[in-house]
Amino acid sequence: DGFTHLSGDGSARMVDVTAKAPTIRSATAEATVLVAPEVLEALTGGTVPKGDVWAVARIAGIQAAKKCADLLPLAHIIGVHGATVDFEVGADRIRIVATTRTADRTGVEMEAMTAASVAGLAMVDMIKGLDRSVELTGIRLLEKTGGRSGTWRREANGTTGGA
Amino acid sequence: DGFTHLSGDGSARMVDVTAKAPTIRSATAEATVLVAPEVLEALTGGTVPKGDVWAVARIAGIQAAKKCADLLPLAHIIGVHGATVDFEVGADRIRIVATTRTADRTGVEMEAMTAASVAGLAMVDMIKGLDRSVELTGIRLLEKTGGRSGTWRREANGTTGGA
Amino acid sequence: DGFTHLSGDGSARMVDVTAKAPTIRSATAEATVLVAPEVLEALTGGTVPKGDVWAVARIAGIQAAKKCADLLPLAHIIGVHGATVDFEVGADRIRIVATTRTADRTGVEMEAMTAASVAGLAMVDMIKGLDRSVELTGIRLLEKTGGRSGTWRREANGTTGGA
Amino acid sequence: DGFTHLSGDGSARMVDVTAKAPTIRSATAEATVLVAPEVLEALTGGTVPKGDVWAVARIAGIQAAKKCADLLPLAHIIGVHGATVDFEVGADRIRIVATTRTADRTGVEMEAMTAASVAGLAMVDMIKGLDRSVELTGIRLLEKTGGRSGTWRREANGTTGGA
Amino acid sequence: DGFTHLSGDGSARMVDVTAKAPTIRSATAEATVLVAPEVLEALTGGTVPKGDVWAVARIAGIQAAKKCADLLPLAHIIGVHGATVDFEVGADRIRIVATTRTADRTGVEMEAMTAASVAGLAMVDMIKGLDRSVELTGIRLLEKTGGRSGTWRREANGTTGGA
Amino acid sequence: DGFTHLSGDGSARMVDVTAKAPTIRSATAEATVLVAPEVLEALTGGTVPKGDVWAVARIAGIQAAKKCADLLPLAHIIGVHGATVDFEVGADRIRIVATTRTADRTGVEMEAMTAASVAGLAMVDMIKGLDRSVELTGIRLLEKTGGRSGTWRREANGTTGGA
Repeated sequence: DGFTHLSGDGSARMVDVTAKAPTIRSATAEATVLVAPEVLEALTGGTVPKGDVWAVARIAGIQAAKKCADLLPLAHIIGVHGATVDFEVGADRIRIVATTRTADRTGVEMEAMTAASVAGLAMVDMIKGLDRSVELTGIRLLEKTGGRSGTWRREANGTTGGA
Repeated sequence: DGFTHLSGDGSARMVDVTAKAPTIRSATAEATVLVAPEVLEALTGGTVPKGDVWAVARIAGIQAAKKCADLLPLAHIIGVHGATVDFEVGADRIRIVATTRTADRTGVEMEAMTAASVAGLAMVDMIKGLDRSVELTGIRLLEKTGGRSGTWRREANGTTGGA
Repeated sequence: DGFTHLSGDGSARMVDVTAKAPTIRSATAEATVLVAPEVLEALTGGTVPKGDVWAVARIAGIQAAKKCADLLPLAHIIGVHGATVDFEVGADRIRIVATTRTADRTGVEMEAMTAASVAGLAMVDMIKGLDRSVELTGIRLLEKTGGRSGTWRREANGTTGGA
Repeated sequence: DGFTHLSGDGSARMVDVTAKAPTIRSATAEATVLVAPEVLEALTGGTVPKGDVWAVARIAGIQAAKKCADLLPLAHIIGVHGATVDFEVGADRIRIVATTRTADRTGVEMEAMTAASVAGLAMVDMIKGLDRSVELTGIRLLEKTGGRSGTWRREANGTTGGA
Repeated sequence: DGFTHLSGDGSARMVDVTAKAPTIRSATAEATVLVAPEVLEALTGGTVPKGDVWAVARIAGIQAAKKCADLLPLAHIIGVHGATVDFEVGADRIRIVATTRTADRTGVEMEAMTAASVAGLAMVDMIKGLDRSVELTGIRLLEKTGGRSGTWRREANGTTGGA
Repeated sequence: DGFTHLSGDGSARMVDVTAKAPTIRSATAEATVLVAPEVLEALTGGTVPKGDVWAVARIAGIQAAKKCADLLPLAHIIGVHGATVDFEVGADRIRIVATTRTADRTGVEMEAMTAASVAGLAMVDMIKGLDRSVELTGIRLLEKTGGRSGTWRREANGTTGGA
């Protein structure tokens, strides 16, 4: 027909999930913000704007879980039916743990990883005036449940080859 | 007046930048995706959807640079006047480098870090079917130029206290 | 483990609704725009841009019903399956009535209140050039149906303690 | 030409502001949430999720100031260069005061009113489980500065005809 | 009641689809970009940025399928559960074919047409520096399946009266 | 360094416009909706929802002009400082003319073409229940002014090679 066809197996596509069953699925991911101890002290000790650092980061993370289909080109629009973002403060780092839940057709692993990442970025945004070298690291899936492949848990200290 | 006032120094606020001059500013940030060598081989060798992995991640990163004000609660709406996202492939990792530019009133450090992060998340989204343990790490500012504080460069191997 | 845990009952979270059944639910809310009679006369009499005031406000309201998950940090992403916005014009006020419907897992009360509010703000946006003192008021739920708690109707003249 | 032209003075249009000068402008608006005293007591006394009520509402308001061009069909895309949202708690009401600032081509009155409104809606979203009759009211401009028309202040008790 | 009611059959409304069944539905639409042969040659021959023209347009189209509820005022929020965008290159034109799929309550015809249109606009955005007269044309539905009305296919050469 | 660099001239990038001067620029584009005469008659004669067809399409178009940076991956975030969408009705077609204006660093050609396209899609969305074969066609730039390249006008009947 005089046309050269350009689609093929290598093309980006949003995979068809119409045949997948809506079931309850969850995912938990973590991220870590590395920060100079003196900055962390200021952060928790009240000499810089503080209480709201946690609230701003938490809310940024929850909202980001809802923006996955907008941020990730091949992600599906699905219902996001639950999301939490919590923090743990160590000597030189803040650990962020995000959990997302759905009763829809796809897993919510990317929603959890995106929530953890954006909570971390919001934290960096508030810290960078004090410490430009702040680093966001260790964004990874900890656990998923539901769906055809069922439950998966990261092994202790288990990391991918590049760790 | 019978009212208890709840605002204070600890409240979240979008800092007033109306007095800052619009000048040319840039920022460069990096992120790293750690991935099992066999997955990386498949990724670059063509046995999984490939060419577009780079395009999807690059475009996701560029678009994310434009979504900063939406993702980060206290970020300002500014013009984003240039953005690039590039990749380097090692034995067990992919390094993402994002650069953003503006001729507006604030720095674009968060735009660069967000672009690198979301490019990485888009890559994770495409890899996770092959390797759930994939990890996004080392998101940090490499350099900024322009604005009142001028140029800043991360020192070689220089990381924050928690590294 | 050396970490101080920061999550608790007071933290913002998107409540888990995965266990709620998808059923037909509706909500109706109202808002009122108070406006100087001479401005209202101009508005309805054709000496200012008019026909479209209603269309712009109506469409802004319908679109806002779809933006709830984006505007309200803890709101869920749900399907919005029906929305109407109607107006009643009095001597010195315009009454806005918004109704939203869904067949999803949560109520649509906030969708209806957001639709009424944003329709009102769009109206204010078009009126403020004529009358800066224009006021948007009385945004409240009138009725909801469906879901576990069933039907609720505001009592006549029933307002909360502060009315 | 056989065509019937449908545009006219009554059509919605985004007014051309290319000729307006970028100058520093600000606006302050208020909104009030009316709430049963016992609910307000729970809210401030800690028997319901609380600390974050203020943070969630504040952040929702700040983010909404940035969404004006998306929410209001005829609003312009402009830089939003500063935003604050504060609260005052009375016996049966919460007063929200939002201030927005820009160094761009249009006023930010609608940004301030939208911030106050959406902060109020976010508060309603968190209160409605306790009190469905909660009402959002009194959304109005208090002051604006800058631009061709200069400073305007609402007179004490000054309301529009419908008050 | 002293109020003039302004709603009527002619008002914009988001039609209530709560009673429609969630079933598998699909739609395919096409669009055509008309472009000078020498530009097309440059485009496919590598003297202008190329490989990514297809990737950028494809991704823009897939993402646009997810933005229908945001772009079209009366469209519903539904799940988008599959999307592809492919290209065929002729002597003086590029044909875009977009297919969308859902397991939700409404058809996805507008999602397919929007995907084809925005893929075309993204292509125009990259071509316009070379050829300002580039034209996007022939955006139309080719086929739909599922839902109450079942399958529909455009007849060969079948166009509407104005073709 | 053991890394393979993947960026090159063929990669998608948001071109740097920080050096371009903010000046007044405008663009006008058109689109045409081809529709069966009997449907057009119903549309203008009142036996289908009508008045609002024009308002919905006009508002969808104006709002789309503001969404260019979100829809087109390589478009810049710029101020949109004026937008109009008008209609002309012929025997079997509706002609849409969109004009956009800015005082910012890039041209607004894509804003005008996107406004015309999305106004057309909104119209298709309302017509498709009556006529599935409705077609959106002839989306093209008519004129641009301002910027380094100054004024450009499409020649009468002038179309690209593929017309």
